[in-house]
Amino acid sequence: MHAIERLVTPRSVAVIGASADPAKTAGRPVSYLRKHGFSGAIYPVNPKVESIDGLRCYPDIASLPEVPDVGIVLLGAERAHLAVRELAARGAGAAIVLASGYTETGAEGARRQAELVEAAGSMRLLGPNTIGLVNLTDNIPLSASGALEMDRFHAGSIGVVSQSGGILGALLSRAAARGIGLSKLVSTSNEVDLDLADFIDYLADDEATRVIALYVESVRHPQAFRRAALKAARAGKPVVAFKIGRSESGARAAVSHTGALAGADRMYDALFEQVGVIRAQTFSDLLDMPAALSSGRRLRGKRIAILTSTGGAGTLVSDSLGMAGFETPAPDEDTAAQLRALQKGDHAALDRNPIDVTLAGLQPDLLRAAIRILLDSPSYDAVSVIVGSSGLAMPDLMANAIRDCLPHSDKPLLAYVSPHAPEVASLLNRRGVPAFSDPEACTAAFGAMLRAGKSVTDLEAGTGALPMPDLGACGTGSLDEAAAKALFAGFGVPVAKEVVVMHGDEALAAAQSFHGNVVLKVLSSEITHKSDVGGVAVDVPPSDVAARLQQMAAEVQSATGIEPRRYLVQQMVRGGVEVILGMHRDALGTAILLGMGGVTAELFSDTTLRMLPPGQGLTREAALEMVRRLKTAPLLHGYRGRPRADVEALAGAIVAFSRMVATLGDRLVEAEINPVFVLPEGQGVVAADGVAVLADRDNR
Amino acid sequence: MHAIERLVTPRSVAVIGASADPAKTAGRPVSYLRKHGFSGAIYPVNPKVESIDGLRCYPDIASLPEVPDVGIVLLGAERAHLAVRELAARGAGAAIVLASGYTETGAEGARRQAELVEAAGSMRLLGPNTIGLVNLTDNIPLSASGALEMDRFHAGSIGVVSQSGGILGALLSRAAARGIGLSKLVSTSNEVDLDLADFIDYLADDEATRVIALYVESVRHPQAFRRAALKAARAGKPVVAFKIGRSESGARAAVSHTGALAGADRMYDALFEQVGVIRAQTFSDLLDMPAALSSGRRLRGKRIAILTSTGGAGTLVSDSLGMAGFETPAPDEDTAAQLRALQKGDHAALDRNPIDVTLAGLQPDLLRAAIRILLDSPSYDAVSVIVGSSGLAMPDLMANAIRDCLPHSDKPLLAYVSPHAPEVASLLNRRGVPAFSDPEACTAAFGAMLRAGKSVTDLEAGTGALPMPDLGACGTGSLDEAAAKALFAGFGVPVAKEVVVMHGDEALAAAQSFHGNVVLKVLSSEITHKSDVGGVAVDVPPSDVAARLQQMAAEVQSATGIEPRRYLVQQMVRGGVEVILGMHRDALGTAILLGMGGVTAELFSDTTLRMLPPGQGLTREAALEMVRRLKTAPLLHGYRGRPRADVEALAGAIVAFSRMVATLGDRLVEAEINPVFVLPEGQGVVAADGVAVLADRDNR
Repeated sequence: MHAIERLVTPRSVAVIGASADPAKTAGRPVSYLRKHGFSGAIYPVNPKVESIDGLRCYPDIASLPEVPDVGIVLLGAERAHLAVRELAARGAGAAIVLASGYTETGAEGARRQAELVEAAGSMRLLGPNTIGLVNLTDNIPLSASGALEMDRFHAGSIGVVSQSGGILGALLSRAAARGIGLSKLVSTSNEVDLDLADFIDYLADDEATRVIALYVESVRHPQAFRRAALKAARAGKPVVAFKIGRSESGARAAVSHTGALAGADRMYDALFEQVGVIRAQTFSDLLDMPAALSSGRRLRGKRIAILTSTGGAGTLVSDSLGMAGFETPAPDEDTAAQLRALQKGDHAALDRNPIDVTLAGLQPDLLRAAIRILLDSPSYDAVSVIVGSSGLAMPDLMANAIRDCLPHSDKPLLAYVSPHAPEVASLLNRRGVPAFSDPEACTAAFGAMLRAGKSVTDLEAGTGALPMPDLGACGTGSLDEAAAKALFAGFGVPVAKEVVVMHGDEALAAAQSFHGNVVLKVLSSEITHKSDVGGVAVDVPPSDVAARLQQMAAEVQSATGIEPRRYLVQQMVRGGVEVILGMHRDALGTAILLGMGGVTAELFSDTTLRMLPPGQGLTREAALEMVRRLKTAPLLHGYRGRPRADVEALAGAIVAFSRMVATLGDRLVEAEINPVFVLPEGQGVVAADGVAVLADRDNR
Repeated sequence: MHAIERLVTPRSVAVIGASADPAKTAGRPVSYLRKHGFSGAIYPVNPKVESIDGLRCYPDIASLPEVPDVGIVLLGAERAHLAVRELAARGAGAAIVLASGYTETGAEGARRQAELVEAAGSMRLLGPNTIGLVNLTDNIPLSASGALEMDRFHAGSIGVVSQSGGILGALLSRAAARGIGLSKLVSTSNEVDLDLADFIDYLADDEATRVIALYVESVRHPQAFRRAALKAARAGKPVVAFKIGRSESGARAAVSHTGALAGADRMYDALFEQVGVIRAQTFSDLLDMPAALSSGRRLRGKRIAILTSTGGAGTLVSDSLGMAGFETPAPDEDTAAQLRALQKGDHAALDRNPIDVTLAGLQPDLLRAAIRILLDSPSYDAVSVIVGSSGLAMPDLMANAIRDCLPHSDKPLLAYVSPHAPEVASLLNRRGVPAFSDPEACTAAFGAMLRAGKSVTDLEAGTGALPMPDLGACGTGSLDEAAAKALFAGFGVPVAKEVVVMHGDEALAAAQSFHGNVVLKVLSSEITHKSDVGGVAVDVPPSDVAARLQQMAAEVQSATGIEPRRYLVQQMVRGGVEVILGMHRDALGTAILLGMGGVTAELFSDTTLRMLPPGQGLTREAALEMVRRLKTAPLLHGYRGRPRADVEALAGAIVAFSRMVATLGDRLVEAEINPVFVLPEGQGVVAADGVAVLADRDNR
């Protein structure tokens, strides 16, 4: 039996340190197991107590009548490892350790945590510092969460994995109040063994689970997380994540700008996006989006019909949808005619959306017919029904009328409940109609259904790494500009023509060979901000280049105290759009960053990030997608009469750069090309300046 | 007696068309008046009924025993005007007309609405198409809203004015469920007489009201709205508005770009901001923000202490606050020492924020003491208390412990309730501690308390208009470039030196007089996109200008079929930052638009709008504030080694342009300067191109 399966659906549970007082935290697990109808064996372990609520209590783990599938350890951090060691010795499937006082409290806690891991050996461990797990599908609460005080929970198809126990309780109680059905809830907390990825992987296989909701503080094992998320995506189970830590700046001091532009939270954005994880923007999204997705319905377009029997509320929903780019078109003529035929006498105007069928608020048959017409209409991809106060008098009839329309169509059907009426919303949710009381929640729900409806193929396609080149000639540490560009060029990134020179006469010869004006730069790995110290001269005619070199030598020496020995004579690149191309690596992985150049785009941080699939570069499609995501992408596409830029060549350079990053792996500490000139269509791109830092081969 | 006072606090109410069946809409008003304890006289009017629930029913208005202060008219649109006419004839204070079927339904409805207005004469009218008003302060429900089915409402200090009746009901029921106390609710709907502004004005004087919440579809009378909002601001009563119609593009085809850049919703943003109205971004903000503001507390800084007894929830609030620019610093040493002294034994770490005082969740005394320490701490401007599930067992004790801290300090104190526990949130709200169940709501609440804490002086200060100049020479319609700039120059906007010429020799003489290269442009009010038809040449040496003029004549004629007769020779402006300066006028008023020039800033629509106080130009301070609000303002302040731009001169140009707009009033249909070159500090600004459209004096 799969170890997690044994943890989630145990036939026997030992509760070590169980208290006979159900009001105490240590009394809750046994109390909840019985209250919620666990059908397996419960073995309380407590040497001081004979029995708990009629159950025989055992003095220690050794005396249990059978090997328990799961041991819930309620002892404090000082003693929990002893119980874990005994459970492991007896061959238990897993231990759940609730105690806090481990790494989260400092060095002494970290020592205890190591002790705990050692004690568990090959037995699986959930926690420590966890509130446990709740298997709602099978009525198995393995948790001390006070949220289980509720009389019964409504089982459903949303699996929840939370890195915080308190949040698990909040989600459990909130979902129950709203009639939103959950399948399994797990709090992974300190994750010394079982983590986020393990449970995503488990839930991807779990028949009862259709949607997975995550509360994420930090992804500790990015590769396992990727694999699990992709498995869920392939299984057609959307994953929705709320991730905190969004407001940390995450910037780090670096030679390149890329570090500051990337930032920890944007790396999460990139990771989530690439493995199909939908990001919840607000905490309530973390229930709202899965509630909508658990209907199994997917949105195939952006046209929403809003059916209302009350004025303002329909407009609220329509306005919120419009802000997010959804459309609420008026009914087509045929649809309007069908709606008109439903109502006798003086009609409300049916040439608009929200579609006001006032009497539908009072007549379930009319409501049912109107919803069916709208679901059938070729004008709409989904229907949102507004429940006003008129429906509150007969909640059951109204909820059933809406529910009855579900088999009629596979288009999404949501409800917005305008007055305070939690019982109506709960009824609708339990009948399979996702219901919300915030207009913004309807919009988030439709957004998630649209996202989840998109194909998941090629989420992580990559282009293979190249053979590792001989980097001997490059040296290590921060490369000078010429060496950095030679490295980039070696991987296929087009760089500006340039020659390294030491004296004015060499500079003259080089400049003449380029047939035009040149750029002259001082070349030194010690000088990082060349232009600040007079080390850059642009548009220099060949005839002036020798004199200019003399002048530069003097200026740089006076500004830095360093006597320049080498210079770069570079082809002068004219025209084109400047972009920045960089890499960023953190605990989550390695990403390529593309940004628009120029000070204005910089002020708006117009950049996009894409993580590399492990060991691979980006595909051409991924590179083109990065370009499309720049807000200033129109600058590349002939905006306002400019020439169209060579976007194909830019994509090629991105792919080449990304394959370099994939190939060099840890050897490459930093790399950035700034600027890349994207020339007019057909003329390619040219890397004009760049930095690269290589790790020492033995010292990385 | 003030007519609105008489409407809101009537001593006698006639209900015309009252039904004896309280389940019918027409039965509700009498039923609600009695249920909620109206102490005045109730006169049902219905010729078919003898009495309603023991109240004598009158056959018509003429037979009422006294003149009613208010008549609630429940008749349909076909007959409502008859009742209104009779009420007016008897001298009633006001009529409330609930019927729909007026302008909102088309031409026939508009005719009925005119009839209704005529019937009312000088009597005040609320509606039609309104759900009425509810005076909670004095237990006077003058409404058919089904939300009044509730047994009793909790009176408080938030006055609500809604342009939708359905939304009024939603707000009433939601506020009641959350323990948020309202003072008066009014649905103004079609606003044939009493409107949004009338009730803001009334509530600004109303003693029971401390905060005003608005649901706005459209401000029909902007001047009255301004006056009323400013009156509320001066009375220290914050106004919070949720405005729909945000997703309309609002762009209009225009000669200038300004129309498209401005947009209807941004005009509302500008108006609200300038009269101190706080804009609710989500529908729930419309209750959350007033709930926080009704505490009367204002936030004087951005440092928030989060006190928690549960892990995840504090982090949720802290993360949300951080996203909005609030700070959650760790306690200073002295504060940490005081917190440490509260707890015995093994402490949670107190060097961080959220501040985890785990036992405070179970011990009211500890909670009380910890809150007081944080309110006293010089490190914090406000305190947010997290209520976890541990507090749910004794909601009253916990709520009282928090409430007890209120007199201790005037800093804001909010609660976030993590589990589903509406009764706890309601208890806290009723005890004066604003309580929320969404982390984003806490952030919105603090944001509103910060905004409301700022001074309201000079919200609408302006600079007077100038004497109307003689515009005879300008002509009317779309002015050519030279005439437009002459107009701007006449009001003190510095414009580029230029000369109008007709022939090459004149162009040469003009160019030579400028001592440098020039810009040559074709000059014609018929050609609006000069550069698209070859009508602009820049950086032309004086020696080439005559030949260039010949060439331009040919190109323009070939492209447009128009033979150019006049040209503009203009001083070539070099350097500086390009901005755009325009005006925009719609039903709300007239605004000045400032935008950053250049294609990149244009892609980001980096513009800011400021409405003119009626008949006045902007002050220098307002102009500088506009500059500060540009996201790319750093480009003007010496960003990345650029020279600092002459921002003072730009402010002067904005003031001059705005005074021109104020002075010309309706005479000026459109005006835009694009670009204005903002030169380095001390060198001023230069308007290089512009358009102006003047209305015909008799035809405007």
